[in-house]
Amino acid sequence: MTERALDRIGAFSDGVMAVAITLLVLNIEVPSLKHGQSLDDALVDLLPSLGAFVLAFALVGRFWVIHHNLFEKLRAFDQRLMMLNLAFLAAIVLIPFSAELYDTYTQDAVAAAVLGANLGLAAALHSSMTHHVLRADLIHQERRAETQPSVGLGITTTFALSVPAAFLSVHLAEALWISTVVVRYPLRRLGRRTTSP
Amino acid sequence: MTERALDRIGAFSDGVMAVAITLLVLNIEVPSLKHGQSLDDALVDLLPSLGAFVLAFALVGRFWVIHHNLFEKLRAFDQRLMMLNLAFLAAIVLIPFSAELYDTYTQDAVAAAVLGANLGLAAALHSSMTHHVLRADLIHQERRAETQPSVGLGITTTFALSVPAAFLSVHLAEALWISTVVVRYPLRRLGRRTTSP
Amino acid sequence: MTERALDRIGAFSDGVMAVAITLLVLNIEVPSLKHGQSLDDALVDLLPSLGAFVLAFALVGRFWVIHHNLFEKLRAFDQRLMMLNLAFLAAIVLIPFSAELYDTYTQDAVAAAVLGANLGLAAALHSSMTHHVLRADLIHQERRAETQPSVGLGITTTFALSVPAAFLSVHLAEALWISTVVVRYPLRRLGRRTTSP
Amino acid sequence: MTERALDRIGAFSDGVMAVAITLLVLNIEVPSLKHGQSLDDALVDLLPSLGAFVLAFALVGRFWVIHHNLFEKLRAFDQRLMMLNLAFLAAIVLIPFSAELYDTYTQDAVAAAVLGANLGLAAALHSSMTHHVLRADLIHQERRAETQPSVGLGITTTFALSVPAAFLSVHLAEALWISTVVVRYPLRRLGRRTTSP
Repeated sequence: MTERALDRIGAFSDGVMAVAITLLVLNIEVPSLKHGQSLDDALVDLLPSLGAFVLAFALVGRFWVIHHNLFEKLRAFDQRLMMLNLAFLAAIVLIPFSAELYDTYTQDAVAAAVLGANLGLAAALHSSMTHHVLRADLIHQERRAETQPSVGLGITTTFALSVPAAFLSVHLAEALWISTVVVRYPLRRLGRRTTSP
Repeated sequence: MTERALDRIGAFSDGVMAVAITLLVLNIEVPSLKHGQSLDDALVDLLPSLGAFVLAFALVGRFWVIHHNLFEKLRAFDQRLMMLNLAFLAAIVLIPFSAELYDTYTQDAVAAAVLGANLGLAAALHSSMTHHVLRADLIHQERRAETQPSVGLGITTTFALSVPAAFLSVHLAEALWISTVVVRYPLRRLGRRTTSP
Repeated sequence: MTERALDRIGAFSDGVMAVAITLLVLNIEVPSLKHGQSLDDALVDLLPSLGAFVLAFALVGRFWVIHHNLFEKLRAFDQRLMMLNLAFLAAIVLIPFSAELYDTYTQDAVAAAVLGANLGLAAALHSSMTHHVLRADLIHQERRAETQPSVGLGITTTFALSVPAAFLSVHLAEALWISTVVVRYPLRRLGRRTTSP
Repeated sequence: MTERALDRIGAFSDGVMAVAITLLVLNIEVPSLKHGQSLDDALVDLLPSLGAFVLAFALVGRFWVIHHNLFEKLRAFDQRLMMLNLAFLAAIVLIPFSAELYDTYTQDAVAAAVLGANLGLAAALHSSMTHHVLRADLIHQERRAETQPSVGLGITTTFALSVPAAFLSVHLAEALWISTVVVRYPLRRLGRRTTSP
């Protein structure tokens, strides 16, 4: 029973993250050609928007991977986990807005700071979930050893640092965001299980 | 067979609620700066919209929790439950519209009344589902005791009261909505089942 | 293996129908008040849009029910069923467009005829799926008896008739559409199975 | 455990593809009648958009079929597959943008080239996934024989050729795209398994 209930929480979370990650494409708008402009030029002007799309897609994809990784190890849930998960999903759903803000005002430190804060909030809430399931004993015994709360803390700190960093240089903030995607995914040793003879 | 059919009804309902809850972010629009306005000021002006987003997300999330809670206990379904569930989902899908209306006309009692009526309709339809599955014996025997129709009635009454309350004061209506989220979630004793030795 | 593959086809179809049914709400736009207009009046003007939403939601919901009903009985699938299902989903995805067209040009027979043709196409494709799974023996033996191709034909004919009917009177077309929702759902005897002692 | 984790990766991928395929309908806009124009004429003008929708829907549907076909055979996953799958989904999510660009600038070779490149990227990433799961031994032993990497290569080459072809003639590019849909689906011998006596 709990197994099926857990599956449905995962499925709902997947649904929300799948819609949020797909809505990112709405931020790339088909250009209206100004007088005398060629489509080629208009598409070149669109490249930063494409870059912002790729970055935001990778970041939401990263969150999906760590969420998937955590929920795979659960054996039960409680009211607090439900609430933390909904708060985490609310932060994820805000990312298409923050990414569009950042894409519209690329040179403005405030826009980059808002995106950094949004990412930091999502990471902090995910970190809280990890801490809670460890403390409240909601995890399968045999999976406890491989659950590293430190991974979540590292990402949270990186995103949090990107907020003040944005006021020094927007590119520094971007570098910090990208580092969280390039860092090795925590799924590394989990998925690959040889069951062949 | 019924088990798989029930899973698919739950999955479709999850999908609809996941899309509806994510569409709420479309109500927060990236500001176009007016002459001489800084992005900081424009973002401060956006805070009420962010507040409306958080409130609407929490309310739809609350509905997802009680829907999840009810469907977890079902052992069968009938035609009437299918129709009530579709009507409930239609009310949920209307919430992004009502929330945007309320966010656009914050000071107007009519807009708050429309959101209150929408929430009340969703709660009343969920309450009808609870009553129907108890009466039509669609629930697992061992879960009957913990199914409290009174919880649904409490929320329905609170939302219904928020409609006339909106004409006294929009803030009173808001306080009633928030109370339904802050009230203890009915999942409390269900999810947490220790299966460890 | 086939069981899991079938589940995933059902899940994808559910996802598409869940997004399509939720997009219907985007057709109800928050009004911009004209000079001197009260919000009350603007909301009254919105009632036909709300009616179109409810009708379109009920029609897509109806299609979801018959799709769910058919797939529940399958034991295998083939290439042709995959293609028919994708074509059926394409017709469903067009409904938010046709419904908005009909809502924008309510008095125009052509708009009603387009919505009628769209609904008829979806019904005809669903009917083809039913015929195909019966002919190609893709259905569980014990469920063959209860699979009535005639139900699908009835709905297809009704929608097809609504296309010429729209040119006589838009309201006659509407009455035909509503009749397909009010007609008894074919799930009647399937879901309700008592497994208690 | 890996089975459930794989199911969730498939479910997330299905969710993303379901949202992307449904967003295609947003490219068909309800026409605003110009002075003296009849709705009939406006709808005739909309036919190319409808054609673009049908083509894009068929192409994304095709990608869903080959993705479904590949994941059905997996017995495990690793970090690299997760990353390739996310990159593949990012390419799929871009298709509604590329399709709208192509629909807006139908006569412009650049727009057709962008859509061709987008489709080619998605096909190349899917091909990489097929190669990776074969090399890294992530596939069920008994399904290895039927996994043809050549199918993916054929589609990738066709889409890649459509990029230069667009500069010769947009219709040649279109013909190449359509050919990938009309070509026999690789699911042919997989789904149809008779389990009856």
